[in-house]
Amino acid sequence: MSVTFEKFLVKEDFEGYEDPVKYETFKPKLEKYVQNLNENIKPEYAITLPKPIEELRADQFNAVDYLYKEKLLTEKEFEITDCNNPELAEKISKGEYSSVDVLKAFAKRATIAHQLTNCAMEIFIDEGLERAKYLDEYLAKNGKTIGPLHGLPISLKEHYKYKGKVCHASFVSLIDNVAEDHSTTIQILENLGAVFYIRTNQPQCLMHLCSENNYVGGARSPYNISLSAGGSSSGEGALVSMGGSVAGVGSDIGGSVRSPAAFSGCFSLRPSNKRISLAGAVASGSGQESIVAVCGPLARSLEDVDYWMKSYINDGEPWELDQDCVRMPWRDVPKPAAKDLTIAVMYDDGIVKPTPPIQRGLKETVAKLEKAGVKIVEFKPIKAQEALDLINDMYTADGNVSSKKLLSQSGEPLTKLTKWYLNYGRGKKSFTIYENHQLNVARDLLRQEYLEYFNNNKIDFILSPTSSNVAPKPEEVFNWSYTTLWNILDSPTIVFQTGLFQDPKIDKWDDSFKDYKYRSDLEELELTNYKPEEFIGAPIGLQLSGKRYYDEEVVAAGKTIGDILGVKILKN
Amino acid sequence: MSVTFEKFLVKEDFEGYEDPVKYETFKPKLEKYVQNLNENIKPEYAITLPKPIEELRADQFNAVDYLYKEKLLTEKEFEITDCNNPELAEKISKGEYSSVDVLKAFAKRATIAHQLTNCAMEIFIDEGLERAKYLDEYLAKNGKTIGPLHGLPISLKEHYKYKGKVCHASFVSLIDNVAEDHSTTIQILENLGAVFYIRTNQPQCLMHLCSENNYVGGARSPYNISLSAGGSSSGEGALVSMGGSVAGVGSDIGGSVRSPAAFSGCFSLRPSNKRISLAGAVASGSGQESIVAVCGPLARSLEDVDYWMKSYINDGEPWELDQDCVRMPWRDVPKPAAKDLTIAVMYDDGIVKPTPPIQRGLKETVAKLEKAGVKIVEFKPIKAQEALDLINDMYTADGNVSSKKLLSQSGEPLTKLTKWYLNYGRGKKSFTIYENHQLNVARDLLRQEYLEYFNNNKIDFILSPTSSNVAPKPEEVFNWSYTTLWNILDSPTIVFQTGLFQDPKIDKWDDSFKDYKYRSDLEELELTNYKPEEFIGAPIGLQLSGKRYYDEEVVAAGKTIGDILGVKILKN
Repeated sequence: MSVTFEKFLVKEDFEGYEDPVKYETFKPKLEKYVQNLNENIKPEYAITLPKPIEELRADQFNAVDYLYKEKLLTEKEFEITDCNNPELAEKISKGEYSSVDVLKAFAKRATIAHQLTNCAMEIFIDEGLERAKYLDEYLAKNGKTIGPLHGLPISLKEHYKYKGKVCHASFVSLIDNVAEDHSTTIQILENLGAVFYIRTNQPQCLMHLCSENNYVGGARSPYNISLSAGGSSSGEGALVSMGGSVAGVGSDIGGSVRSPAAFSGCFSLRPSNKRISLAGAVASGSGQESIVAVCGPLARSLEDVDYWMKSYINDGEPWELDQDCVRMPWRDVPKPAAKDLTIAVMYDDGIVKPTPPIQRGLKETVAKLEKAGVKIVEFKPIKAQEALDLINDMYTADGNVSSKKLLSQSGEPLTKLTKWYLNYGRGKKSFTIYENHQLNVARDLLRQEYLEYFNNNKIDFILSPTSSNVAPKPEEVFNWSYTTLWNILDSPTIVFQTGLFQDPKIDKWDDSFKDYKYRSDLEELELTNYKPEEFIGAPIGLQLSGKRYYDEEVVAAGKTIGDILGVKILKN
Repeated sequence: MSVTFEKFLVKEDFEGYEDPVKYETFKPKLEKYVQNLNENIKPEYAITLPKPIEELRADQFNAVDYLYKEKLLTEKEFEITDCNNPELAEKISKGEYSSVDVLKAFAKRATIAHQLTNCAMEIFIDEGLERAKYLDEYLAKNGKTIGPLHGLPISLKEHYKYKGKVCHASFVSLIDNVAEDHSTTIQILENLGAVFYIRTNQPQCLMHLCSENNYVGGARSPYNISLSAGGSSSGEGALVSMGGSVAGVGSDIGGSVRSPAAFSGCFSLRPSNKRISLAGAVASGSGQESIVAVCGPLARSLEDVDYWMKSYINDGEPWELDQDCVRMPWRDVPKPAAKDLTIAVMYDDGIVKPTPPIQRGLKETVAKLEKAGVKIVEFKPIKAQEALDLINDMYTADGNVSSKKLLSQSGEPLTKLTKWYLNYGRGKKSFTIYENHQLNVARDLLRQEYLEYFNNNKIDFILSPTSSNVAPKPEEVFNWSYTTLWNILDSPTIVFQTGLFQDPKIDKWDDSFKDYKYRSDLEELELTNYKPEEFIGAPIGLQLSGKRYYDEEVVAAGKTIGDILGVKILKN
């Protein structure tokens, strides 16, 4: 390989970040944090690993397969944890399952998931049990649930403030940052009846499509635990794909609910901006509005995503609690018929060519959709490089001031992908406000161009890879272009599972690839990482994107695609 | 008076702005522009002024009174132009009035309005007539209208791009800026059947609550043409209050649809952000998102405002044409009963004390509302000074780079209130992007505090002055705090008319005022300008504000207030 990661580190020299002496003073706290996590793994839910975890990773161990094949749960526990959300809520409301039994089943599955994928930051099952008991008593006493999520065990990305608990967003400097209140989204979910018991893993700085951090290390894809779970909602991807919660609360400013869903093997929605509250989510980018993060759910099916969105928005009315949320009820949109759909397919964004498994995933999906009557056209990417440059400029437009502050306060070591991120845009050199305004104007022109593409060509949705590759090896995911395009456009985007998995026997570069001329150093860096034998069994998830505020339509169309592909939920 | 306007000019030295030599090259074009305006005043619609305009101004002439008393229109023309929007649309759709007759009646009334108030930038009645003829033919041929605004003559603030016409936003440097397309809002209104024939006056830089510019000078309040029409949708305020259009399209980033409505004598709505498209509106602040401008209607009644909003949003679906608009249909909200309303009243924002007519307007309005059963509580302003400082910082956060560019390209003379505006925030000193992010965070905290005030105190709406005074003398309006508060909060806010007018016999400072200690130089600057005998007959308009996205509720409550006050439409 002629191109190295280090070659890209030219715009930020990292002066004033790492400080081993200062960091030393944080180490006892970090150790205590990890100890606390480990102590909260309850023996009654834990398994004995068949081999030490490092060996399992080296084996490309498939944790989902193991869970089912070894029957690590009882039949009843499988029944409960494999139920979809609306059904589970109904069964709890009718008293078929108690909230306590439901929580116990999920706690067990979540514990196993954590043992195999390192998905958790914090586990607090006893608190979940208390809450579940309260809910059971409430139902018994009042004859009704407290809301549509009554008794549903929901997992939370760590960076959402949780009353009375530390909220650090994987910044070591925030290790003493105890939240006085729940973040708005957690409060809404609690108001609607959710049960909390686990907070999940995320990368340093929250700005990797991967997971490494100085708290607990990275989370892994359950289908091949040698690979990354994706990020930044890493732990949610791994946990939800293992069935360890009914749904997870992630957040996404560059792919962070989508890459974990795609890489770990579940479904997700990156909603349009401001439909779901991010108030009380800790991150370095507060007040940065050129490109905003969104909160979105990860779940095992689009039915679950739909149920989460509908309950949250229509019963939770987030605009009544958070000034930043739009007053936009969740509309009931029926599944469209295949013949009424026109889908444009982006086979390659021109920045990094998709690897063989992604090419196969797209091709087989398109073939099935066409056969079912969906009208397919090819989407020639519009200004994909410009979009990527723009969003990278926006992320770091403040010259990394806010990230540096949070990182340097502890002097923690920078992970490889934090260094990568800090080199986006102009790196340590700030834009001026006037220049930032010009970036915003360029973004709006791009959004308008895409809107007109949809309208003028009567395109309903755009189908695209979530990444050029399936789940990457840890710390080996550099190119964000396939996900960031939809952030800069604010397109509601789902990740769905094709039901296909990487197969080293099939998913090899074809012969013509040996003459392939890399279009950029970035492409070379990414594609030389693809060695078929190293990605065995990685799930192949794709994206479907719609026009801004067409969230309901995208989810509904995703269900139709699920019907066509025969994949409503992914199990091995 | 110890405090002078000049005392405030400390943060911008205006170096590099004015350039008499360069400006000289623009003068022939400016002269041609004015000549074109004057030539398009059609003799058949014009009146002979009773005195030269300067003398009428010195007389504090009441143009509305004159229009009715002198019967400057025929009975039929009054009938047409005094009809409310939904009725007028219905009558046109039934063939009771032709679009041509309607346009002619409004063209006459608009022409008179312009002669007396200087409200127009551009008049193009022949084009309107062509369009009206087309609409009449369409209706005759198809037996139906082309949309809910079929045949309604709507006026347009000049800064909205109009296909084939110059769009300058009162920047002399843009005098050759011919638009290739309509702005989105104009396109939507046209799609719905509107007829265009007049574009209206606005101040230099668009950032005055007044009207002076180097194109055609300032517009005046029709109820007392010695006074300012307000701004920046100055011409809309004057024209609509004179009944010269069924509704006007304004825009508001600091009070610009509200001050003209209040000062000139009509109604308006500053909608929540992004419900109405501003795409294709020319201004210096492109890409500035900390505090965004909104497009909003001015009209003679809230029924008209409601009809405009409902037609525009529900039939126009702006989110399909402009990527920036929220997909939020206009909800049907019935008029609330008085007894179901709780209104908090801000008698004084603590920055500039309201003058006697405003005090009287509030007091009499509150008395009538209470008598009708409305629950009234006092609103103690929350962080009003902080809000004002914040928004002023945001306006000029780029160090005036964008404004300077547009102003210096022609070297045009700076008006007094442009100088005032350029001294906001840090004036010529830019903020950093990181600092700008902190301003955004502070703004969001403020919004949250107000949202919680509404919710925790079960307040439906806040009633407040639109300004500390009635219509000011031209170039004498400095304090924006009463309007900008609702911009920074993004509160939907209507201006309604109390039906009261300034009366120099009543509206004097009471005796205690002689001992009043000005709380700031700004307050002194404003209040020493109030001399009762100089504001005769100025209308007293107030604001009603609601929670973000409660636009429909604010308009509905305004109608209830109109019923209570007996003021649905203002005529002398």
